Amino acid sequence: MQTLDKPLQQEIDQPLTIAGKSFNSRLMTGTGKYRTLEQMQQSILACGCEIVTVAVRRVQTQAPGHEGLAEAIDWKKIWMLPNTAGCQNAEDAIRVARLGREMAKLLGQEDNNFVKLEVIPDPKYLLPDPIGTLEAAEKLVKEGFAVLPYINADPLLAKRLEEVGCATVMPLGSPIGSGQGIKNAANIQIIIDNAKVPVVVDAGIGTPSEAATAMEMGADALLINSAIALAGQPAMMAKAMGMATQAGRLAYLSGRIPIKNYATASSPVTGTINS
Amino acid sequence: MQTLDKPLQQEIDQPLTIAGKSFNSRLMTGTGKYRTLEQMQQSILACGCEIVTVAVRRVQTQAPGHEGLAEAIDWKKIWMLPNTAGCQNAEDAIRVARLGREMAKLLGQEDNNFVKLEVIPDPKYLLPDPIGTLEAAEKLVKEGFAVLPYINADPLLAKRLEEVGCATVMPLGSPIGSGQGIKNAANIQIIIDNAKVPVVVDAGIGTPSEAATAMEMGADALLINSAIALAGQPAMMAKAMGMATQAGRLAYLSGRIPIKNYATASSPVTGTINS
Amino acid sequence: MQTLDKPLQQEIDQPLTIAGKSFNSRLMTGTGKYRTLEQMQQSILACGCEIVTVAVRRVQTQAPGHEGLAEAIDWKKIWMLPNTAGCQNAEDAIRVARLGREMAKLLGQEDNNFVKLEVIPDPKYLLPDPIGTLEAAEKLVKEGFAVLPYINADPLLAKRLEEVGCATVMPLGSPIGSGQGIKNAANIQIIIDNAKVPVVVDAGIGTPSEAATAMEMGADALLINSAIALAGQPAMMAKAMGMATQAGRLAYLSGRIPIKNYATASSPVTGTINS
Amino acid sequence: MQTLDKPLQQEIDQPLTIAGKSFNSRLMTGTGKYRTLEQMQQSILACGCEIVTVAVRRVQTQAPGHEGLAEAIDWKKIWMLPNTAGCQNAEDAIRVARLGREMAKLLGQEDNNFVKLEVIPDPKYLLPDPIGTLEAAEKLVKEGFAVLPYINADPLLAKRLEEVGCATVMPLGSPIGSGQGIKNAANIQIIIDNAKVPVVVDAGIGTPSEAATAMEMGADALLINSAIALAGQPAMMAKAMGMATQAGRLAYLSGRIPIKNYATASSPVTGTINS
Repeated sequence: MQTLDKPLQQEIDQPLTIAGKSFNSRLMTGTGKYRTLEQMQQSILACGCEIVTVAVRRVQTQAPGHEGLAEAIDWKKIWMLPNTAGCQNAEDAIRVARLGREMAKLLGQEDNNFVKLEVIPDPKYLLPDPIGTLEAAEKLVKEGFAVLPYINADPLLAKRLEEVGCATVMPLGSPIGSGQGIKNAANIQIIIDNAKVPVVVDAGIGTPSEAATAMEMGADALLINSAIALAGQPAMMAKAMGMATQAGRLAYLSGRIPIKNYATASSPVTGTINS
Repeated sequence: MQTLDKPLQQEIDQPLTIAGKSFNSRLMTGTGKYRTLEQMQQSILACGCEIVTVAVRRVQTQAPGHEGLAEAIDWKKIWMLPNTAGCQNAEDAIRVARLGREMAKLLGQEDNNFVKLEVIPDPKYLLPDPIGTLEAAEKLVKEGFAVLPYINADPLLAKRLEEVGCATVMPLGSPIGSGQGIKNAANIQIIIDNAKVPVVVDAGIGTPSEAATAMEMGADALLINSAIALAGQPAMMAKAMGMATQAGRLAYLSGRIPIKNYATASSPVTGTINS
Repeated sequence: MQTLDKPLQQEIDQPLTIAGKSFNSRLMTGTGKYRTLEQMQQSILACGCEIVTVAVRRVQTQAPGHEGLAEAIDWKKIWMLPNTAGCQNAEDAIRVARLGREMAKLLGQEDNNFVKLEVIPDPKYLLPDPIGTLEAAEKLVKEGFAVLPYINADPLLAKRLEEVGCATVMPLGSPIGSGQGIKNAANIQIIIDNAKVPVVVDAGIGTPSEAATAMEMGADALLINSAIALAGQPAMMAKAMGMATQAGRLAYLSGRIPIKNYATASSPVTGTINS
Repeated sequence: MQTLDKPLQQEIDQPLTIAGKSFNSRLMTGTGKYRTLEQMQQSILACGCEIVTVAVRRVQTQAPGHEGLAEAIDWKKIWMLPNTAGCQNAEDAIRVARLGREMAKLLGQEDNNFVKLEVIPDPKYLLPDPIGTLEAAEKLVKEGFAVLPYINADPLLAKRLEEVGCATVMPLGSPIGSGQGIKNAANIQIIIDNAKVPVVVDAGIGTPSEAATAMEMGADALLINSAIALAGQPAMMAKAMGMATQAGRLAYLSGRIPIKNYATASSPVTGTINS
């Protein structure tokens, strides 16, 4: 891979910019579900991510088996994205968002005002509530948060959230942890085609091919947790996801060939055989 | 990507071995359709491939615009895979295979007995003839060729070709150059699950996500030409294809998460909020 | 078809019941886009529908080429479903819903309180606004309407609408008139599995196979307009859609075979040939 | 359904003609796997089929539980399609085809020279052998049979079989009894677009929507067995399959709407609200 080394790619591509902060990696990961903290650490390294999301409530309550999670990550290198997992309504989410900001400060990220907003009343599918999410987003934006809302792939809701000042929109590909892939592709494409903020595809991605698919569609970034943490070999899958995210981005920038009904010869032969 | 560097991956994975010859890269490319020889050279470098297929008839006849193609590649580093593109029946293909062996020798690969066998009577879809392919394969194997036959994704035909001694089978994902992706996935999966020779998915792949998909299914290698050569920026797409091939392979080795109907919380919360 | 004639099917199946009113047909159609009123009349007859939706604003304003539309349908046999097409916000939709009720009364349906609620600010994709739809639905329910809201396939929004008293939910398969089919199948399935009101798949269906697919998933009914009105032969397509809706419903009631990875012999042979 | 009654449809459509014999129904069924002979009889009636395939070897050997099968069908109304299920090579299949012709004669169909040719060496996927099938087909055609070969969806093989005089080609959608649906759609479409004999999609169809899909693609007929025989309620599913086959055919004749990326309003509103 001599010819297209990092400098070249960076000339072509722009960094991912969210709320004024720039990142080279377009893959975000999480901290949940890993079998060991060591696997989490290795996976974060292997995928090359620069943003890691953390469930504020779990860290606050030191949920069993997750002690020391916040300390296990080098927050000088990784940007924390506190999330409001476990919140079933707008008020809870707002309260937890504030706790998250405190947590980031305590861990040394004084200027971190990011929050991944999850308002999820439903425990079975873990699908977000559009009304509660919009309500919480409006309030958090007014409080100065950079809000990254987790939403169903509803283009009108995405537009509303953008209008109230959200920093990104994060439509889901399929239910969290389901590994079903990009089930809402048509709607996600409409969101991508119309958004003026970064679109981060979140939830549902199970394989590198699905990660690449989302990036080829023009998504600005991805968030992948379960597919890495619960893979047979998390760090190896993490590396695969990092490569696929880059591959999908490069393909989006390169311009794919058109899809044709018929074949086109790779090697047209106009001459005859000289034998 | 410090933790999972090349040595670690190589410990886990085996090289691709075809007819006793081993390769680290699992992506093969072609030489057709490039707008310039320079783009071809850059793309071959960018994707990291070690096997490149060449249409023997085109090189023999010095088809317009392709003069110097054979000389443009460093055959000390790249293994030539002569192909029989343009042959409509078994006899033609056998004759061109022999020419290909001569060509490889002339270019310095004395021991190269590889041939990508294409018997394609149909100019519209460029689909291979199963009967002619089997007939030519049998004869070429007897002549000492390592035969890599291009076939429709027919599991029984694949088995027959393996039984007559082919070195691989190369089922097509969709018609050559169509960029339709993996349209025969169910049959290709059956071929993969039952083959004792390497399965190389050939033709139809249009994007890195499709390349990764084939590798995640367990394909041993891929051959991609049009999707690189005709991309907006061939070398960048070549790099993307190389990364996606690796990502798909790593994912296959890692073990993906199961697909679930319902969600699974990334961040289960058992405690309550302390606020 | 002697054995499973109508009586038998009706013993097994229940009628479709919306807001206390029962219907034998599970296919609803529209009045827009037909080339002639005669084609509309023939199509309504051919598909066997009992509910037809009418754009209140178009009828009120006697939009060019659509004079006499309301009079062209036999409202003694067909139940009118006034819709609020063309309304971009909740207030407009509420006002038009009231006009629709007046229109139904004038045409002889004194007790018709149905309204298909469409709040569509976006002219390109014609996707509904979840916030405005919920707001209008709440108010219209309080005014005594049987509200059938047109929504994106968002399970949480569907649940909210059910909770405020809507008579059905009408998730879209894909954008209106796009003929893309059921692009939101995963979400629609979640809605079906959890709804306590009838689920009517609306918009996007382009073919009978797609109509059958939605019914096989367990949808209670369908609304199809463009795919019939703009078909080459509308009445023939209408008949096909009617049959496919019934076929899909019967299949749902029958219980389909499980999907298997491997084959199962249709005709297992245990003996040997006597020849 | 007053407007488009049978006469009208028949004016538009042609009957299905195979080897000079015409049929009104485009759905063929089988006799295997039913739980009772009565369910088989009811299903045959319910789906309206006119051709039923019978495994010659099973009838010859009176396989357990299937005594009286041949006598259970009214061969004055139903055209028998003897099949060579259980044959692993060309010789066996030829021998069983001859037995089938005798069987048809004994049951009163003197002029019945049809045979559904199955050459299936593989017991796991039940996929046909292309080489053995072509070999047997050539010989059977020369013996005066109307040969309907069961094949993988290989367009070149289909063309070869047509050239040696087969009466139809019968590409499989997916493995027999798998209920996976139409997995080889791209190849089947190529076969349909190029065949000069009827194309009968055989094997794999699990639901009415899949039956309709194949017919919408332009298939001339379908053969469905497992999806009916093993459904929860076979006769009801049979009826559904019969309706879906007709619906798909009508849609093919009607001309579907084009698929669009964007929406098209069902009810364009040009006026303003008069309220």
